Amino acid sequence: MSFYFSATGCAIKYSNRDDFALIYSDTPCICSAVFTQNKVKAAPVLLSMQRKDKPIHAILVNSGNANACTGQLGMDNAEALTAHAAQLLNIHEESVLNASTGVIGVPLPVEKMKPAIPRLVQSLDTHNAGAFAAAIMTTDTIPKCITETFAARGKEYSITAISKGSGMIAPNMATLLNFVVSDAPVPRETLDAVFKEAVNKTLNSLTIDGDMSTNDSAFFLVPQAEKEAMLTLPEDIEAFRLAVLSVMKKTARLLIEDGEGVTKCVTVRVDGASTSEDAKKAARSIAESLLVKTALFGNDPNWGRIACAAGYSGAEFDPQLLSISIEGHKLFEKGSVCEYIKDDLLKIMAQGSYTIYVDLGAGKEGWEYLTSDISYEYVRINAEYTT
Amino acid sequence: MSFYFSATGCAIKYSNRDDFALIYSDTPCICSAVFTQNKVKAAPVLLSMQRKDKPIHAILVNSGNANACTGQLGMDNAEALTAHAAQLLNIHEESVLNASTGVIGVPLPVEKMKPAIPRLVQSLDTHNAGAFAAAIMTTDTIPKCITETFAARGKEYSITAISKGSGMIAPNMATLLNFVVSDAPVPRETLDAVFKEAVNKTLNSLTIDGDMSTNDSAFFLVPQAEKEAMLTLPEDIEAFRLAVLSVMKKTARLLIEDGEGVTKCVTVRVDGASTSEDAKKAARSIAESLLVKTALFGNDPNWGRIACAAGYSGAEFDPQLLSISIEGHKLFEKGSVCEYIKDDLLKIMAQGSYTIYVDLGAGKEGWEYLTSDISYEYVRINAEYTT
Repeated sequence: MSFYFSATGCAIKYSNRDDFALIYSDTPCICSAVFTQNKVKAAPVLLSMQRKDKPIHAILVNSGNANACTGQLGMDNAEALTAHAAQLLNIHEESVLNASTGVIGVPLPVEKMKPAIPRLVQSLDTHNAGAFAAAIMTTDTIPKCITETFAARGKEYSITAISKGSGMIAPNMATLLNFVVSDAPVPRETLDAVFKEAVNKTLNSLTIDGDMSTNDSAFFLVPQAEKEAMLTLPEDIEAFRLAVLSVMKKTARLLIEDGEGVTKCVTVRVDGASTSEDAKKAARSIAESLLVKTALFGNDPNWGRIACAAGYSGAEFDPQLLSISIEGHKLFEKGSVCEYIKDDLLKIMAQGSYTIYVDLGAGKEGWEYLTSDISYEYVRINAEYTT
Repeated sequence: MSFYFSATGCAIKYSNRDDFALIYSDTPCICSAVFTQNKVKAAPVLLSMQRKDKPIHAILVNSGNANACTGQLGMDNAEALTAHAAQLLNIHEESVLNASTGVIGVPLPVEKMKPAIPRLVQSLDTHNAGAFAAAIMTTDTIPKCITETFAARGKEYSITAISKGSGMIAPNMATLLNFVVSDAPVPRETLDAVFKEAVNKTLNSLTIDGDMSTNDSAFFLVPQAEKEAMLTLPEDIEAFRLAVLSVMKKTARLLIEDGEGVTKCVTVRVDGASTSEDAKKAARSIAESLLVKTALFGNDPNWGRIACAAGYSGAEFDPQLLSISIEGHKLFEKGSVCEYIKDDLLKIMAQGSYTIYVDLGAGKEGWEYLTSDISYEYVRINAEYTT
C-alpha cells in the first residue's frame, strides 16, 4: 500500500504559493485522531470528528482560511469540497477527512477551491510529502516533514509526520495540524494508545503562547489489514511505539524552533514530583510563564521567575526543597541561592537551545515540556495579523 | 484617630529615589489581608500572615528587593527590621506587618535599611501618603494613591488606597502591593466581607501578564473600636461597601494603565453566562489570551481570537448563540459574522480605552475583567529586568 500527496495553489489568501493539499491512500485506512478541546470548533473539525471511525482514504487540507465561526455555510462548504474530491478519487465521500488553518470567520472561497481539486487528484504522488507540508504552512517559515523507519517481522515500515505551527501553539494543540501516516498494519487499539501517548508527550507538552485554536487536529493513518497480517507481537508494537515517539518528538522540536518570533528552544525538565501530573503542572506553568519566556529572550538566568511559576502551578512541593539548574549550573539548591559563573551560563543561554532542570524534592516523578521565548517579533507578527 | 505615612531612601537597588516606607496608626487597628496563593511565599508574606489577626499599628514596606527565596535569613531580616521599627514607635513588635517588592533571591541589605528606620519614624505625617506611594514603586511610572470619602451616622469618613504594580499583575494579585486605610470603625466580619468582595471584583479581575508573584499582599486597616462606636447599620455598611468598591475600581484602572509597556486599557465584559463563575472564566480567558492582547496592541478587531479564547475557557455555551461587540459595533451575532464600519471601530480601538462585550447566550450572569495589550515595550522591560 502507498500514501500519495499533492499540493496546488488556489489563492485562498495569497496568490504566490500553494495553499490546498491532499493525502490519499490506495488502501482504506484506520484513523486515530485528536482534536481541539475548544468549544468553538471549526467546520472541518466537526466534519472529521463525525467521520474518523469509518474507513478513511483521504484528507483534504487548506491553509489561509480556518473555516471557523462560519456557521452552517462552513459545514456545507466542507462537505461539498470533500464530496467533490471523493467523486474524482472514486471513493466514498465519508472516507475523506478535512482540515483547515488560517483566518477565522471568513467563508471559504469555494469558487476558487473547487476547480483546484482535479489538479490535486491528478498530481498525487508518493514523493510529494514535501509539497504537501509547504502548502499547509501559515506563518511557518519552513515545511515540517519527518520520516523514520522501523523493522518488524522481517520487514521495514516507515512513519511520516507532517506538521504546521506556528502561532497559537499550546498544550492541547493550538492551531496545529499534524498528519502521520505509516504502512505499518497495527490494530486500532494499538494505534490509539500509541498515538495518544505520543501526542501527550510531544504536541501537548509544548507551548509558544498558550492559546488553543478552533482548528487543531492530529491524524494518524495506517492501512486496514486482515488480522493475521497485523503487527501484534509485543516487540513489534514496542518498535512501532518507539518510532512514533521519535518522529513526534522531532516534530515538536521543529514546531517550537519555527514558532512565531522564536529565538530560543528550551526544554523544561521537572523531576522530583510526587505524581507525574504534578511534574507536568510545574513544567507547564514554567514553560507558559510570560515572565520566564521574556527572560529566556533576554538570556537572563532569572531563576526567581522559574521558582515563582512552579509555586503557582498547583504542584505540591516544599519551597525549602526546591532546586533549579541550567545545564549543570546550579542556581538554587534546596531553598538556597547558589553562586554560579555567570559568563559561562550566559554563553549557554545565548546559544539558544538548552534545558532548565527543576527538582521539586517531593517524589520521583518527572515530565518534560518544550518552550520558546517571547520576542519583539512575536508581538509584531500577532499585532499585524489581520489588519 | 489618624494614619501617618513616611518614606526615605536607603539605596536598596537605586540610590536616587525613596525605597523604604512606613504606615503608622496611632490607634490599634483590625486588619483584613489577602496574600498570594503562590506556594513560594516571600518572608514578609509569611511574617504578615502570622501577625495579621493581632492588633496592628504599622506596616513597614520596601521596594527594590522582594526578600523572596531567601530562606531563614529572609525571615530573620524581616523580623529584625519590624522589631526595630516597633521599638522606635514604642509598640508591640507583632503589631508591625511587612511587605517587600523587587528582585527575588537576594538577601535584604539590612545594614543599609536598619539605620533608615529612625528617619522613617521621625518623618511620619498624615499628609505623606503620596511619598509612601512613590517609595513602593518598582517599574511603575506613577505613584498610585486614591482617596474617597463617605458619610455615615452624620460623620464623614475617608478611605485611602495606595498600590503598586506593574509587572506580574494577574488574577490572584501578582506582585501587587495594596494598602487601604480608613478611619471608619467597622466590625472585622464587615471589613473581611467588603474587602474580599472588592479584591475579587478589582485586583483579582485584572491581568497584564498572567503571572502570580511570591509577594502579593493586600491590606486593609481600620481602627479597633468599642461596639457602640461601630458602624453596624445596614445603610452605613452599604455606604462603606460602595466607597471601598469605588476606590478599589479606580486603583485597578490605575494599575492596568500603568502596566509595563501598556498602551491600551480594555474592559472585557462577559454576559449571558449560566453562572457567574462561567462568566468569570470566559472574561479571564479572553483577558489573558496573548493573541487577544497582541491584537489589542495592533488595533485589530480580531473577534475570532476572542471567540477562540472564550471557547477554551471552560465556560459552558453554544457557539451558535455567541455574540461579540466592541462599543456598539457588532462583530459576531449569534454565531454569524456581522458587517461593521471598520474605520469607526479602528478610531475607538486606537484611542485605547474601550469595552469588549461578549454574550455567551447561556444565561443571565456576568463578570468584568480589566486587561491591557502586550507591546514591544513589555517584552523589552521584562527581557532586561535583572541582567
